[in-house]
Amino acid sequence: MTPTITAFERSPDGGKGLARDTRVRWALEEVGQPYEVRLVSFQAMKEPAHLALHPFGQIPTYEESDLALFETGSIVLHLAERHAGLLPGDAKARARAISWMFAALNTVEPPILELMTVRILEGDRPWTRERLPLVLDRIRERLKQLSARLGDSDWLDGAFSAGDLMMVSVLLRLRASGLLNEFPSLSAYVARGEARPAYQRAFAAQLAVNTR
Amino acid sequence: MTPTITAFERSPDGGKGLARDTRVRWALEEVGQPYEVRLVSFQAMKEPAHLALHPFGQIPTYEESDLALFETGSIVLHLAERHAGLLPGDAKARARAISWMFAALNTVEPPILELMTVRILEGDRPWTRERLPLVLDRIRERLKQLSARLGDSDWLDGAFSAGDLMMVSVLLRLRASGLLNEFPSLSAYVARGEARPAYQRAFAAQLAVNTR
Repeated sequence: MTPTITAFERSPDGGKGLARDTRVRWALEEVGQPYEVRLVSFQAMKEPAHLALHPFGQIPTYEESDLALFETGSIVLHLAERHAGLLPGDAKARARAISWMFAALNTVEPPILELMTVRILEGDRPWTRERLPLVLDRIRERLKQLSARLGDSDWLDGAFSAGDLMMVSVLLRLRASGLLNEFPSLSAYVARGEARPAYQRAFAAQLAVNTR
Repeated sequence: MTPTITAFERSPDGGKGLARDTRVRWALEEVGQPYEVRLVSFQAMKEPAHLALHPFGQIPTYEESDLALFETGSIVLHLAERHAGLLPGDAKARARAISWMFAALNTVEPPILELMTVRILEGDRPWTRERLPLVLDRIRERLKQLSARLGDSDWLDGAFSAGDLMMVSVLLRLRASGLLNEFPSLSAYVARGEARPAYQRAFAAQLAVNTR
């Protein structure tokens, strides 16, 4: 049965691929799983039918027969566990790839989300200009550590995995800030992710929705 | 072989159980897996030997024979997959419990981490007093949604799972703020987590380190 995911009827980023459905689309494309998309409006996201699928009223969700999942990390992991292509076969390498998924979502993304707070939620506040450099410095600290670990490898731990998919997706949020340019190896890492045919297809699919 | 985790030689919270090793200790206690602890100083955490285990220079890490993992979420998931007690047997219920783990770490914890930013990293900044209510309101929004989903259930999805372990651990960070008291069902949920014998043992073990 073809799974169905949800995505923004109109993404706040206008199709830059930063909405989280792109991460799930990318995973689906990597494993070669066709999928359907149900678009939801901002209003519908806060209504009972959608809240039954996603308690926090967000996208994406994932429905496959009578299984309903929310949270991008969980959906990507679910796909990675059931199809070849996103996790190594070796149990230890697999556990390490999953470490990178969590690192992307719980160590690298939170300081980056603060940048969204500064720019969007608190963009009109008097402290924003003075606060921005502090937020950027906290992100730089993480990028420095990530860059040190990546070294001159193509991916974080051996072959491309769901850990890289998630890390590249999180780093893509930084493109507009220019911060990635300060770390050439991370910039190249992100570009390698974007160059993957599966990412290209995922990006094009979300762009098509947002440029109808 | 007995696994070894790392923890702060001296936790910044002085033993309140908020350092992330408590989450891993709790999981180990739930599944009945004995473990050893290696304490690391703030200085040692930034040195090459520890960075080889944890690229972001944090605790906890997990070593078991020749497998080394970092990131609390990944360690807890690893334990939950290899022992009974933290994930349901049914594949669908299992995937849903994992959704709650990711929800705790990537949807509920990030706004709570901003509270730490306000209180600690930016505690002395001129905007802190005016900014605090905005940060608290964003956390309230998540708590409202979580509380609506929990309803009058004991746990988030059927029996206690790694999803609850992680969500309770994340919510515990809010105790000092008083925010939990605004949501009696969440307050009771957290208390149910804390009342579990496995949590009690984990808490006592980290407290013993911090009150030597």
